[in-house]
Amino acid sequence: MSDVYIVGVDMIKFGRFPEQTVPQLGAKAALMALDDAGLTIQDMQALYCGNLGQASGMVGQRILQQIGQTGIPVVNCANACATGATAFREGWMSIKAGLYDLVLAVGVEQMGRGLLGGGAPAQGIPSEGLLGSGTMPSVFAEAGLEHSSKYGTTFEQFAKVSVKNHHHATTNDKAMYQIETPLEDVMNSEMISYPNTKLMCSVNVDGSAAAVLASEKTVKELGLGNRAVKVRASVLTSDPWQERDLVLPDVNTCTRNAAKAAYEMAGVGPDDIDLVELHDCFATAEILHYENLGLCGDGEAGRLIDEGEVALGGRIPVNVSGGLLSKGHPLGATGIANMYEISKHLRGEAGARQVEGARLGMTHVIGLGSACGIHILEKGA
Amino acid sequence: MSDVYIVGVDMIKFGRFPEQTVPQLGAKAALMALDDAGLTIQDMQALYCGNLGQASGMVGQRILQQIGQTGIPVVNCANACATGATAFREGWMSIKAGLYDLVLAVGVEQMGRGLLGGGAPAQGIPSEGLLGSGTMPSVFAEAGLEHSSKYGTTFEQFAKVSVKNHHHATTNDKAMYQIETPLEDVMNSEMISYPNTKLMCSVNVDGSAAAVLASEKTVKELGLGNRAVKVRASVLTSDPWQERDLVLPDVNTCTRNAAKAAYEMAGVGPDDIDLVELHDCFATAEILHYENLGLCGDGEAGRLIDEGEVALGGRIPVNVSGGLLSKGHPLGATGIANMYEISKHLRGEAGARQVEGARLGMTHVIGLGSACGIHILEKGA
Repeated sequence: MSDVYIVGVDMIKFGRFPEQTVPQLGAKAALMALDDAGLTIQDMQALYCGNLGQASGMVGQRILQQIGQTGIPVVNCANACATGATAFREGWMSIKAGLYDLVLAVGVEQMGRGLLGGGAPAQGIPSEGLLGSGTMPSVFAEAGLEHSSKYGTTFEQFAKVSVKNHHHATTNDKAMYQIETPLEDVMNSEMISYPNTKLMCSVNVDGSAAAVLASEKTVKELGLGNRAVKVRASVLTSDPWQERDLVLPDVNTCTRNAAKAAYEMAGVGPDDIDLVELHDCFATAEILHYENLGLCGDGEAGRLIDEGEVALGGRIPVNVSGGLLSKGHPLGATGIANMYEISKHLRGEAGARQVEGARLGMTHVIGLGSACGIHILEKGA
Repeated sequence: MSDVYIVGVDMIKFGRFPEQTVPQLGAKAALMALDDAGLTIQDMQALYCGNLGQASGMVGQRILQQIGQTGIPVVNCANACATGATAFREGWMSIKAGLYDLVLAVGVEQMGRGLLGGGAPAQGIPSEGLLGSGTMPSVFAEAGLEHSSKYGTTFEQFAKVSVKNHHHATTNDKAMYQIETPLEDVMNSEMISYPNTKLMCSVNVDGSAAAVLASEKTVKELGLGNRAVKVRASVLTSDPWQERDLVLPDVNTCTRNAAKAAYEMAGVGPDDIDLVELHDCFATAEILHYENLGLCGDGEAGRLIDEGEVALGGRIPVNVSGGLLSKGHPLGATGIANMYEISKHLRGEAGARQVEGARLGMTHVIGLGSACGIHILEKGA
């Protein structure tokens, strides 16, 4: 099996673009990623498109209408918050299968029109469900409280996640927000579902991201090795679907299983990872995932955030991009936007937020009750 | 790369099931295909699900909720009328890539609820679009008329396609209809868009179909060789998306390109194929695809239907299942239902409609302006 590399990757600045169509948003990121690779759509042999809101709408084909209808296979994927990661993974698989040497993966979402029926939602309105019992905010609130009662994790520790991620985003011009949110502001913002305040919920935005994937052979032939990022592991698992108002879903197991499989596939452990983009749909979720991904032992997540180990400059920086809490969370785009962030660091192009000497990075997305996707990426070809 | 085999395949009887959910319909076919393989969901390492109407609704995960939530990767695919073929192909690819040895592919559609907003449409109401200029019925009517003016193809010849396919379906208890439609009835039924009458339009039904795919190694290990069907070619192409009321789409090129690629991949030619399940969304479409798939030379399609070459017992039987015109066309299920039909013949299990000595079969689906999928299947392991 050929190794597979990311040879081009980019994303648009996340924001609110009600005047744009989903294919237009997707096409922008596609062209940017192709440009980053120094290639064109004529070089691509397949397109994998991830979009949730218009999943039945042939978004991939309509992106090609914008950038070049070359007749290549198009596969439209939908997998909740793992939609973009799923499209990326199917593209990776198509090269592994020896079918193609150059494949384009695009993730795109227009949250306003596509999923929430129009209008531009305000900062902090949770993108993952409405309020109330059994909904995403209450599920992640409950899971946080469970962690508190088991390990003594405090409201302040949860809030510090948001402070950190917003701070990280101040140097990411592709994030929705580049604003500091002091601890006091985070703790005093509107309570959505205790212990998550409004500033501790992911930001509902439109966005797109794209990656060009290449076989080892093509990386060599085209001399793309100096910027290539190797896909060391690609794992997708499913999470038991359940009617949400009946039982409180388990927010941990799916990620733990996927992480175990990803470390095995890459032949590395958590200590080898230099930075992580994980699914901080709520501040409490990020705390749980430190442990779920093995970045620390069970019960140690509070200490991790207190001691700055997960901040830029710390032992294992998490969500240096600003994460879903500040960069924003356009569902179908998020998985590939994560790849963009990690790739920039591995290529040494992350500017002010560069994780120095980064060689291995991890991306993580999870759609609760649907799917979890984890990728491990490595510097160089 | 491992060869990939269909080791279990089945479909529900197509019909109108407004009281069922899409996941329930999908689960039925999934269990039937697993049973056909002598395997269970616990043996499966991934699930590829094709559904168009609820493409954003995690249908694959909800099927697992019905039959066993084992945590395996689930990918939900949507690709217009090629949705089922796309899900099948991604499953095939995942085995080719060496990731899995046993994969389940499910295609399902509930046309009433899922796509047309409720109610059970009557026989012959075109499932592929509404009436009027630039819609599917008018596009395929125009394409038929163009064939007539070029080659002298007659209204009667188009109508004979429907007579043939309805006749074929009389021995297929999984078809929506098992009724003869004499030529006079077909020609005198309500005119939808000349030259296609109501009985020359595909039938709008609910349905599901599923296939279990296995690697060569697993076929041997499990001793499944006696019923295995080898996937000799799997091709997907995209068709230029266009706003339908602006330009009359080209209904031929996408299929021609895909057929060329499929014959190349399989290393066979049209003369080697023993039977074909092709996309007879309208009677005129079937006539065009005889030529597009190379079953005869350009301009010879009328003769093919006149001389019975494409009927059961003829040189190259087409749509022995009854096709979309009589078996029915539940969009996401159709691609895998085609695999079921071909596999039954290759296994010698097609009963009264058996194509004797069948060794190679072809399936073809096309969503105009979206995607074309062609597979070539071979008897035995």
